[in-house]
Amino acid sequence: MESFPSKLLENAVEEFAKLPGIGRKTALRLVLHLLKQETQEVNQFGNTLITLKNEVKHCKVCRNISDTDTCTICSAPSRDKSKVCVVENIKDVMSIESTQQYNGLYHVLGGIISPMDGIGPADLEIASLVSRVEEGTVKEVILALSTTMEGDTTNFYIFKKLAAFDIKVTTLARGVSIGGELEYTDEVTLGRSIINRTNFEDSIKQI
Amino acid sequence: MESFPSKLLENAVEEFAKLPGIGRKTALRLVLHLLKQETQEVNQFGNTLITLKNEVKHCKVCRNISDTDTCTICSAPSRDKSKVCVVENIKDVMSIESTQQYNGLYHVLGGIISPMDGIGPADLEIASLVSRVEEGTVKEVILALSTTMEGDTTNFYIFKKLAAFDIKVTTLARGVSIGGELEYTDEVTLGRSIINRTNFEDSIKQI
Repeated sequence: MESFPSKLLENAVEEFAKLPGIGRKTALRLVLHLLKQETQEVNQFGNTLITLKNEVKHCKVCRNISDTDTCTICSAPSRDKSKVCVVENIKDVMSIESTQQYNGLYHVLGGIISPMDGIGPADLEIASLVSRVEEGTVKEVILALSTTMEGDTTNFYIFKKLAAFDIKVTTLARGVSIGGELEYTDEVTLGRSIINRTNFEDSIKQI
Repeated sequence: MESFPSKLLENAVEEFAKLPGIGRKTALRLVLHLLKQETQEVNQFGNTLITLKNEVKHCKVCRNISDTDTCTICSAPSRDKSKVCVVENIKDVMSIESTQQYNGLYHVLGGIISPMDGIGPADLEIASLVSRVEEGTVKEVILALSTTMEGDTTNFYIFKKLAAFDIKVTTLARGVSIGGELEYTDEVTLGRSIINRTNFEDSIKQI
């Protein structure tokens, strides 16, 4: 598939093939699809991406992606400003928001501590989290990072940074997935779910 | 995944999700990847697509995609102008070119006759093929369409249109794939490959 009849086509295929999970064959298929669309639609596709990159902001409070200086979550009067949920990236904010179970604010770290990838605490929004807590409104920080070694390291680093403040630091409950079968649950999760077993009466109230 | 924190982000995700085989989750992943890139790279991505759509041409001889009025294949002096291989789309041109076994020209139909999709002969580059044959240089037309009902219909339509001219009309050989095992070959292909069996001595010369 290497002999492109057009340099313009080849350039477009190469741009698409840079995206994660898109190989050259898929890239060609996508570009040929775009070529079949109206010029106006292709212009819109290209311009939407350029506009996004050039105009999108990061919320000055929580560092979430936003169209305005302060994001819609941080500026909503109905949200509980005493709770801050610390997440790795904006996808996690969207996942938690879609549960409709959380009414506090967020803090987007922009990654997790990963020495293998050269990402240290200074590359993340940890200092800005500490400043937010210093201001005094925040009463609880909920750590909602991945349960990987990097996530645990980052959790522990943040926990130590916040130790001096009179706030609660909590983390997501770990346990058997709802709908999950015991025999397919890994031992560590199952072990933790026995240690942290909850009152049955409380658990049925949450349904 | 429906509560986007930014309208700009949502627009970009929707544009990506219009592409075939890209769902909203993948679209979000791709857009977030682009957001992490340098502004210059994202601008280049968008502009490359816009430039492609606005500047790419179709070769006036074979209708293949081209940067110039006549494509590199049609304008190459080394190619055999007496042979024209009829294909459905530009991907097929690239596939045949990558075999390095064909030295003639092409004619890109832009699709195949498909009443179910409302595509009739008038929507395809069949009239332009007939005009090319009328000019007199072409001595052989090779039909290289898919072996589907639509492909067979299109082949037959073109065959009839060209019946009045003193040229050879050929089609690709059908048979067992190289490396293919007999037990996994469908009956029709296997049946045809017995009827059209070739001289063993000729077949080893091609390797």
